[in-house]
Amino acid sequence: MSEQTTWNDVDSFAERMKTLRHQVWQANMDLQRHNLVTFTWGNVSGIDRESGLVVIKPSGVEYSELSAENMVVVDLQGEIIEGNLKPSSDTATHLELYRQFPSIGGIVHTHSSYATSWAQAGAAIPAFGTTHADYFYGHIPCARALTQQEIESDYELNTGKVIVETIGATDPMAIPGILVREHAPFTWGTDPHNAVHNAVVVEEVAKMAFRTLSINPSTLPIPQTLLDKHYLRKHGKDAYYGQK
Amino acid sequence: MSEQTTWNDVDSFAERMKTLRHQVWQANMDLQRHNLVTFTWGNVSGIDRESGLVVIKPSGVEYSELSAENMVVVDLQGEIIEGNLKPSSDTATHLELYRQFPSIGGIVHTHSSYATSWAQAGAAIPAFGTTHADYFYGHIPCARALTQQEIESDYELNTGKVIVETIGATDPMAIPGILVREHAPFTWGTDPHNAVHNAVVVEEVAKMAFRTLSINPSTLPIPQTLLDKHYLRKHGKDAYYGQK
Amino acid sequence: MSEQTTWNDVDSFAERMKTLRHQVWQANMDLQRHNLVTFTWGNVSGIDRESGLVVIKPSGVEYSELSAENMVVVDLQGEIIEGNLKPSSDTATHLELYRQFPSIGGIVHTHSSYATSWAQAGAAIPAFGTTHADYFYGHIPCARALTQQEIESDYELNTGKVIVETIGATDPMAIPGILVREHAPFTWGTDPHNAVHNAVVVEEVAKMAFRTLSINPSTLPIPQTLLDKHYLRKHGKDAYYGQK
Amino acid sequence: MSEQTTWNDVDSFAERMKTLRHQVWQANMDLQRHNLVTFTWGNVSGIDRESGLVVIKPSGVEYSELSAENMVVVDLQGEIIEGNLKPSSDTATHLELYRQFPSIGGIVHTHSSYATSWAQAGAAIPAFGTTHADYFYGHIPCARALTQQEIESDYELNTGKVIVETIGATDPMAIPGILVREHAPFTWGTDPHNAVHNAVVVEEVAKMAFRTLSINPSTLPIPQTLLDKHYLRKHGKDAYYGQK
Repeated sequence: MSEQTTWNDVDSFAERMKTLRHQVWQANMDLQRHNLVTFTWGNVSGIDRESGLVVIKPSGVEYSELSAENMVVVDLQGEIIEGNLKPSSDTATHLELYRQFPSIGGIVHTHSSYATSWAQAGAAIPAFGTTHADYFYGHIPCARALTQQEIESDYELNTGKVIVETIGATDPMAIPGILVREHAPFTWGTDPHNAVHNAVVVEEVAKMAFRTLSINPSTLPIPQTLLDKHYLRKHGKDAYYGQK
Repeated sequence: MSEQTTWNDVDSFAERMKTLRHQVWQANMDLQRHNLVTFTWGNVSGIDRESGLVVIKPSGVEYSELSAENMVVVDLQGEIIEGNLKPSSDTATHLELYRQFPSIGGIVHTHSSYATSWAQAGAAIPAFGTTHADYFYGHIPCARALTQQEIESDYELNTGKVIVETIGATDPMAIPGILVREHAPFTWGTDPHNAVHNAVVVEEVAKMAFRTLSINPSTLPIPQTLLDKHYLRKHGKDAYYGQK
Repeated sequence: MSEQTTWNDVDSFAERMKTLRHQVWQANMDLQRHNLVTFTWGNVSGIDRESGLVVIKPSGVEYSELSAENMVVVDLQGEIIEGNLKPSSDTATHLELYRQFPSIGGIVHTHSSYATSWAQAGAAIPAFGTTHADYFYGHIPCARALTQQEIESDYELNTGKVIVETIGATDPMAIPGILVREHAPFTWGTDPHNAVHNAVVVEEVAKMAFRTLSINPSTLPIPQTLLDKHYLRKHGKDAYYGQK
Repeated sequence: MSEQTTWNDVDSFAERMKTLRHQVWQANMDLQRHNLVTFTWGNVSGIDRESGLVVIKPSGVEYSELSAENMVVVDLQGEIIEGNLKPSSDTATHLELYRQFPSIGGIVHTHSSYATSWAQAGAAIPAFGTTHADYFYGHIPCARALTQQEIESDYELNTGKVIVETIGATDPMAIPGILVREHAPFTWGTDPHNAVHNAVVVEEVAKMAFRTLSINPSTLPIPQTLLDKHYLRKHGKDAYYGQK
């Protein structure tokens, strides 16, 4: 916190972190409710941008034992600020994304079955329809494989770096997810809840794309006009979907 | 309402609209019960043919917050007659179908997974068996893609127009559903409940057709005689299925 | 009933029919519990061999409205003996099987998804593994398509006749089910409960065979020795599976 | 028990067996909870290494009737030590694995759908991603088919022998499962609970591998470096996954 911190700021910070812990816990539980995880194969984090603190699921703890209280708080360098448990083994990946994508507020990692199958196949998920275009402004990319060296040291950090490299100059909120090759999907969003929402979308879209290709292996992505139409009717200044 | 409206008519109209609101709300909830929707990716409407008023789901509202009371009432030109929420962003599609198909009383739109995959693949669902023939008197058509111009202005209205163009001179109740290419299915029926029933049928039939083609890619549609037999034992004047 | 019927026989007959009605109702409800039916796409019957009376589901009635009391009783010629509702539209198929297969006590018809897909593809389900061999002593046959004439008159009776033709001289209890081409599976068993059990087996085996062929399209059926081993360890005089 | 057995040992033995019975019963019930079994198509056992006694599910008993009390206790030669029911017909397979793999404490056999499909297709499950590598240090092997002679006499014992032959010199805990060709998977673990865990993993990994190959039939296994990274971050002395 900055030099000008007052007691008011302290109260507000404590309140924000309490809320964030609860959101991150809830979002982790939602992975189960949406059938995105087997055992503990997934994790959600959220960031408080003002303080730069990240709340993340502890490593390898069963869902039934998770609570807002046992979520782990780390700073953007990975130092544990609060919590007695070790943070998720994927923490370094999450932190790299928070450092490089200032617009995101929550991150999800799962091994959801269809999306993971695309990641294992080393293939991007083409934008085959409007369901996809409502959320992703183009295909869901599949990152390149990590090199031997990238795997052997700082594996989780390098996973984050390869994600950032793949997204490149694209607005991360226009492509709020990616497939890590030979591994599984990561998604992000404005907050933990929104990142879970996008994880559900990736799995549903991955399932439909799988079936689409089975029915017609030469299916082409939808034209740019339709991609624009659907993405922009839900996003951006002229959006007219929902009650906004 | 016409000039000769009496108080009796007013009462009966109010009663009908109350019933229709409830039916449309119930039908929307049934989409969830039948696993046809993820999040808010679906909508149901119903029409009161006497007044020409349409009751439809509000746009982007979670299923848990839907009620008979927050359904939106619009006229056939899309003017909101009752309701504080915006109607479904697909309202213009529904209205075009109600205007052109006078025999239908309810419409359903979903992104149900198998049917959407067929729509994305740009392929009609062939009548591969009696399950199909019990409800659809021929293949379930896939509409042509919209042109760039049709997408860029009046997209939802044009979606309806392309559906109507595809159905052509066929009795819409003999083919109570269609795949909108690169998008997803629309189904209809005598009322909202019946339209949901047909949405379930389209998804089940799409699933079986997908598997049928995987087992035997050269499967042919069933012969006309069998199509006649099954369709006509459930529909038309000589029907003998059920307790009628 | 024969000339020598005594009051005792009458009581015992009434008791048996009451039990059979309950069994048939229960077996119909079990179709839902095992996820074998959508809407009313399935029916179960059972026979009292002593009197030759068959208890069967009424046609097109929702599962929630079924009861032991509204099951319909017909004789082997299809005359309604008890009940105010029309029997299943597939009754004539069931009766033909009861007439030709004296060893069976219950019959099930469903449109379960994987088995129906095989029927639509016009392909027998090969015995690819021991799961199959535990119940079916060879492939699950797919009947030939009905001729135009067989479809146009006495369709349901002819469906039964083609099933009987396909089973031929085989013991129907060694192959307790079949795929009716372009239609869906029928299974049978010692009683209604056992017939439902076999309907579950057909669906599970159909699902696995579908996946087996996707993984390895040139998979061969298991050898006769393994078929013998598994079928005979559960059936016949040297069976050693279970607590018998 | 050895000559030096004291009353203390007897108490401790009784306590251990009571615990093991409960664990084996619970693990059998968990097969159902994880959707790994249809009807009674599965069994779990556990061993008390000190006494060499094995607790196993009785043969062909419905899950609703299982209890810790009706589990069967056999010695490593298959003699029934406690219990009025016959042990699982696969007991001889379990015992062979316990005799040859001294490090394992629990065994699971299921006919779970995807894993069984791979077994029927006669194909090993390649290590296509990190989900697989987190548990299996290489592909999940598919055993060779049994010979006619191996099927005809001592079939279940020979099934165990072929499993042992296939695992060979590999540490069974590094490859805690296998596909028995034309049959179904067996998995094992440190105790019954862990063996069930591995049975879930095999099914999930089998499902993803099936989908991976459908998307991209020429997918290659992950490189050794990534296999090392994931397997060793969860197993072995430098593991850093979880709260250890």
